[in-house]
Amino acid sequence: MIKAFAATGPTSELTPYEFTLNELGAHEVDIDVAYCGVCHSDISMLKNEWGITAYPFVGGHEVAGTIKAVGAHVKSFRVGQKVGLGWQSEYCLDCSPCHSGDQNLCRSAKGTIIGRHGGFAEVVRAHSSAVVALPDELDMKVAGPMFCGGITVFNPLVQFDIKPTDKVAVIGIGGLGHIALQFLHAWGCEVTAFTSSDAKAQEAYTLGADYVINSTLSSELEKAADSFDFIISTVNVKLDWNAYLGTLKPKGRLHFVGATLAPLDIGVFNLIGGQKSVSGSPVGAPGTIKQMLDFAVQHKIAPQVEEFALSDINAAIAHLESGQARYRVVLKNDL
Amino acid sequence: MIKAFAATGPTSELTPYEFTLNELGAHEVDIDVAYCGVCHSDISMLKNEWGITAYPFVGGHEVAGTIKAVGAHVKSFRVGQKVGLGWQSEYCLDCSPCHSGDQNLCRSAKGTIIGRHGGFAEVVRAHSSAVVALPDELDMKVAGPMFCGGITVFNPLVQFDIKPTDKVAVIGIGGLGHIALQFLHAWGCEVTAFTSSDAKAQEAYTLGADYVINSTLSSELEKAADSFDFIISTVNVKLDWNAYLGTLKPKGRLHFVGATLAPLDIGVFNLIGGQKSVSGSPVGAPGTIKQMLDFAVQHKIAPQVEEFALSDINAAIAHLESGQARYRVVLKNDL
Repeated sequence: MIKAFAATGPTSELTPYEFTLNELGAHEVDIDVAYCGVCHSDISMLKNEWGITAYPFVGGHEVAGTIKAVGAHVKSFRVGQKVGLGWQSEYCLDCSPCHSGDQNLCRSAKGTIIGRHGGFAEVVRAHSSAVVALPDELDMKVAGPMFCGGITVFNPLVQFDIKPTDKVAVIGIGGLGHIALQFLHAWGCEVTAFTSSDAKAQEAYTLGADYVINSTLSSELEKAADSFDFIISTVNVKLDWNAYLGTLKPKGRLHFVGATLAPLDIGVFNLIGGQKSVSGSPVGAPGTIKQMLDFAVQHKIAPQVEEFALSDINAAIAHLESGQARYRVVLKNDL
Repeated sequence: MIKAFAATGPTSELTPYEFTLNELGAHEVDIDVAYCGVCHSDISMLKNEWGITAYPFVGGHEVAGTIKAVGAHVKSFRVGQKVGLGWQSEYCLDCSPCHSGDQNLCRSAKGTIIGRHGGFAEVVRAHSSAVVALPDELDMKVAGPMFCGGITVFNPLVQFDIKPTDKVAVIGIGGLGHIALQFLHAWGCEVTAFTSSDAKAQEAYTLGADYVINSTLSSELEKAADSFDFIISTVNVKLDWNAYLGTLKPKGRLHFVGATLAPLDIGVFNLIGGQKSVSGSPVGAPGTIKQMLDFAVQHKIAPQVEEFALSDINAAIAHLESGQARYRVVLKNDL
């Protein structure tokens, strides 16, 4: 039996839960969970906000641990090896995105916590193609959040060929944004942080921002006209996106990784005039995760985490929901 | 004195008008107008829909003609040479876009019919940097519309690195779309035309479409899910843009060259899931216009035009406004 914490319904607290796994598939691995991050998506799934949650629900998709068992055909991992697992736990490997190294865009990709049990448990299972080895130098405690929060902000730099000479802004300095600032600083870019929180301004500088702009002041946005090659938005609230388009240079891009629910309300003239783009992207492919981990080790980049015991998961979730987390919450497996 | 047709106010018909030009600048040229296209933007300017029209207003920004005079420092043109002039008549040549060959994105670019007189006249003046030589093989009668309608749909293929292996759709088969189909067919792409007009379906095939989809049937859009790498929208009406995003493949782009006024109303999840982009662009730089003209000659691509005499300009404008033009209207200078 595998010990875990599960929700039995959309409004319930998480409670101890035990389950068994079927026989290990030939291309699967089991991972002994050392740490697992708690992400806002876990909370959305917990509450069935997207209408796709199966109960009992075991969340957790920012896993760092060690290989416990490998299937008969798994050649790339060995028992005891340090690995991580993120939002996706299996790819079809046969579609055009999979063939192109864009497995994260595979329409048949299985979510780690969608219709199956995630990392708020002693053990989590995944297809070997979705598991990535951890560099020896990477602390397991901070590795988990790299597999969702980290890759979500790193992947766009690769996808859109961001250059060290680019001037880049990050909207929202939280679980995603605080990692984005570190990556962009190490990437060589001039980095601007947009935040509504004066308290976070100083932290933003420490994390790698060259400039900080108060995102609540439209006068500040006007002053920043024609400034950025790339803006990455990590927030889930509605802002004046047309005003942000005005801060882009010609050919600039406003890129969304934050799941804001309100439609974007973009004026087409604001795109046409300067040949501007608006886009979005989800997590990243295993190859890009590997690049990210190496880059993070090289530049000593890590999410800032607050640790809770897995057995204290309800307090951890409450802390994340309070908006007070600085910046990612991780659970240490004590089951 | 230069003879022209001008509007004296936003609701007036065009009437004969004469004006003089100052001394020719060292970097300017005067062009004897042979033909000038009539574009929807001429009508928008005529009616002051964008609030930037100066009266008396002489429209016309799809000019084909011959060099009448060159300024003292103009080295690249000679009197009698066949040339064209489009939406822009001068660039600053000092800004970052100008330095990068993106003169069409120069914030100081002068519009040919903004605060100055355009091609509905015997003679039009421009900075030499905005004038492009016509290949000998290109018929002057069809050359003018290439400089606005043509470059507007050709430029995105260059800007976004469209490949012959891409599957591309064109929304709207009119003044812009009918040229886009020809370019894309010659580009080697699989081409789909979206049109609300059954009457245009057969024409779309003739122009280069491999498939035609009735854009008014949402069931047809659903069937086309996950089909296109690139969609270029040439229409100025509001469509169900999120449904069109659904017809894009992962990493696909929905690109606007049509000046639809209603906000785009894009759901951010429709961008994030498949790493999709929405963008826009205006005309193109002189270097790209030159590429387009050579490509058009090579592949025998030309706009379909209906000819009116410049002295019959009011009838020409009425025809364009009726929606019956197939597909561009050009005026032959008979002044």
